[in-house]
Amino acid sequence: MSGKGEVNDLLVFNIGSLVTNDLGRDGLLGIVEDAAVAISDGVLEWVGDGADIPAEYGDLPRLDAGGAAVLPGFVDPHTHLVFAGDRSDEFARRLRGESYEEILTAGGGILSTVAATRAASEDDLYDSAVERAWRMLANGTTTVEVKSGYGLNAATEEKMLRVARRIDESLPIDVIPTFLGAHVVPAEYREDRDAYVDLVCGEMLDVCAPLARFCDVFSDEAAFTVEETRRILEAAKNRGLEVRVHADQLGRVGAAHLAAELSAASADHLDHATDEDLTAMSAAGTSAVLLPAVSFSMRLPYPDGRRIWDSGVTVALATDCNPGTANVESMPFVVALAALNMGLTPDEAVWAATRGGALSLRLEDRGHLVPGAVGDLVVLDAPTHLHIPYRPDADLVAAVVKGGVIL
Amino acid sequence: MSGKGEVNDLLVFNIGSLVTNDLGRDGLLGIVEDAAVAISDGVLEWVGDGADIPAEYGDLPRLDAGGAAVLPGFVDPHTHLVFAGDRSDEFARRLRGESYEEILTAGGGILSTVAATRAASEDDLYDSAVERAWRMLANGTTTVEVKSGYGLNAATEEKMLRVARRIDESLPIDVIPTFLGAHVVPAEYREDRDAYVDLVCGEMLDVCAPLARFCDVFSDEAAFTVEETRRILEAAKNRGLEVRVHADQLGRVGAAHLAAELSAASADHLDHATDEDLTAMSAAGTSAVLLPAVSFSMRLPYPDGRRIWDSGVTVALATDCNPGTANVESMPFVVALAALNMGLTPDEAVWAATRGGALSLRLEDRGHLVPGAVGDLVVLDAPTHLHIPYRPDADLVAAVVKGGVIL
Repeated sequence: MSGKGEVNDLLVFNIGSLVTNDLGRDGLLGIVEDAAVAISDGVLEWVGDGADIPAEYGDLPRLDAGGAAVLPGFVDPHTHLVFAGDRSDEFARRLRGESYEEILTAGGGILSTVAATRAASEDDLYDSAVERAWRMLANGTTTVEVKSGYGLNAATEEKMLRVARRIDESLPIDVIPTFLGAHVVPAEYREDRDAYVDLVCGEMLDVCAPLARFCDVFSDEAAFTVEETRRILEAAKNRGLEVRVHADQLGRVGAAHLAAELSAASADHLDHATDEDLTAMSAAGTSAVLLPAVSFSMRLPYPDGRRIWDSGVTVALATDCNPGTANVESMPFVVALAALNMGLTPDEAVWAATRGGALSLRLEDRGHLVPGAVGDLVVLDAPTHLHIPYRPDADLVAAVVKGGVIL
Repeated sequence: MSGKGEVNDLLVFNIGSLVTNDLGRDGLLGIVEDAAVAISDGVLEWVGDGADIPAEYGDLPRLDAGGAAVLPGFVDPHTHLVFAGDRSDEFARRLRGESYEEILTAGGGILSTVAATRAASEDDLYDSAVERAWRMLANGTTTVEVKSGYGLNAATEEKMLRVARRIDESLPIDVIPTFLGAHVVPAEYREDRDAYVDLVCGEMLDVCAPLARFCDVFSDEAAFTVEETRRILEAAKNRGLEVRVHADQLGRVGAAHLAAELSAASADHLDHATDEDLTAMSAAGTSAVLLPAVSFSMRLPYPDGRRIWDSGVTVALATDCNPGTANVESMPFVVALAALNMGLTPDEAVWAATRGGALSLRLEDRGHLVPGAVGDLVVLDAPTHLHIPYRPDADLVAAVVKGGVIL
């Protein structure tokens, strides 16, 4: 977690273009030009004109932004960061035209990740996930949601969540852990789905609920039915977890509507969500988490982000970092994809990757740069945030500050 | 240029997967596993099994590839690397739905780059281009073609080509300079196109031909007609330049066919080239340079790389690095785009970004790793080249060797 007990004071000055997100969803970025921010004990204490820095901050350690743009740290609210194995060969086979069915027959697909993750030691899982987490930090992500879901048995699901906690404790990135025992029905339960749902609601939640903040279910065609999803999420809520849903990615099964009904924090993917689903989500305070890197990597149509945004729902962007359908770690790249392919403006995409992500995780204290927020921010190697879609392959993150500490 | 007079010897060993490209276009990558390569005086002297390194290379300086993949240095055969100004705001306006016509009216578009480039000092142009060239090197590009074309008068075209030469002389990247005086008709000649073509064929070629290896023309709707193109390229050939053509990007005007007729080294873009055009190019030894980052950034349909490859023509990939339509510098990103969106396999895309690029510049000595080739190679932070499309946002270049020197 941020801070880790240090005292973290910092004055960031000479900011050419500061994205504060202090105006809410419709005011968008709340940009202040020629700005400065003061962080005290890891918390943002003052934001204002660089010519009017209060004298009390004169002795803080200083970071010169060099006239560049500064954004809140990115909040990535949907990742499968902890996994074992490499599916680049499967990925190339798909690009050569093989079908997912052929790949499954050849031992590929998600179940190959499950087998590798079950076989991996906790330390090996930790080591590979730490490398990914450091790369995410280098790309400006200061808060990341991490799901289990490649265990599909109690011991491995617990192992994955322990790894997520260890990353949170050992790296300057805040990890929000999500239990996703209901990611897919494992092979050994294919003939008895009810028994698997019983396992998720019973033994798995026994061991995983204490390690998680959210419970997620992949509710879709070829995954869990809406009724199975309801059973699992209600069991999770009874354990004190908040809930989120992989919803209506492959078809419109009613998962987004269920998410709204259960006051889920988010419904994610939403390729097939209807206007009615979005209206229900908006009324329930359920955010929409969009994952453009999946469309990019799988060569599928992008969900219509413009329509989703215009429905009034809170929109967040996430990487979906995973070894099968989106081996992507960079939130700036996701912002570029969303602005280029989903009909969001660059401003909306940046908001969704910062404040939207935070709200989708029900974290009020981040994703914006206002007094009282966590002192997490990104200095770009660019004069404004518009360079993110303009230079989609560039490493635009010049510096990352987490809880007032320059990384 | 590579070498710069140093003696550059190196043994690269412990290569898990070596892309040699020693089998020609249809044999594709010619991968050797568990390989090593020896570079003597900047030239690749030996390639083989890592267990059979000849004793004579025992004393060379060594680079341990750590079991990773090694590729030839990328050859980027189409860039507008030298320019002044920033068009991120125009780019964002397009993403918000403004038309190119509205942007031109507001002072944007290519003519804003021309104005900024004319106004910039040679040193300022050099400084910004050097930053881009270093980033290209960091992404594994060891040879880059650089066009003029934002001057549209003799003095500025010459200034751009001098900058290109200075980059070649001062950085460990080989710059192949191309004169593109016929990029667009400048505003001051809009009413007298013939006079502008006269200027290109006369005074501009007088000063630019000695600084360039190629002459290029943007031959398309809204650019130069096929007859204007023919006149300019024949004048250039009479000055000893080889030729290449921006061909049939916006419509099928017959530019690719003209390129074949003139034995051009390449025809580039080709969105609207017909099968007959491609057959003529193939017969003439004219390469097809494809620029997927333009389609990505402009949200346009991608040319059908599959059809173009299958026509038998030599296919190359390039960034088209420029401030308007593709502010992209990374050849790995271009490889990922081509494999994901143009129907090329990952192997074909890697070949096109290395050997294909070299052949499109008529450089026989690079883009492959065989005895006698330049000692330019890239060590990936990945076990195979398949990670390039699999991890499209990752910085996969772990080390770059230029002429036997580790950068």
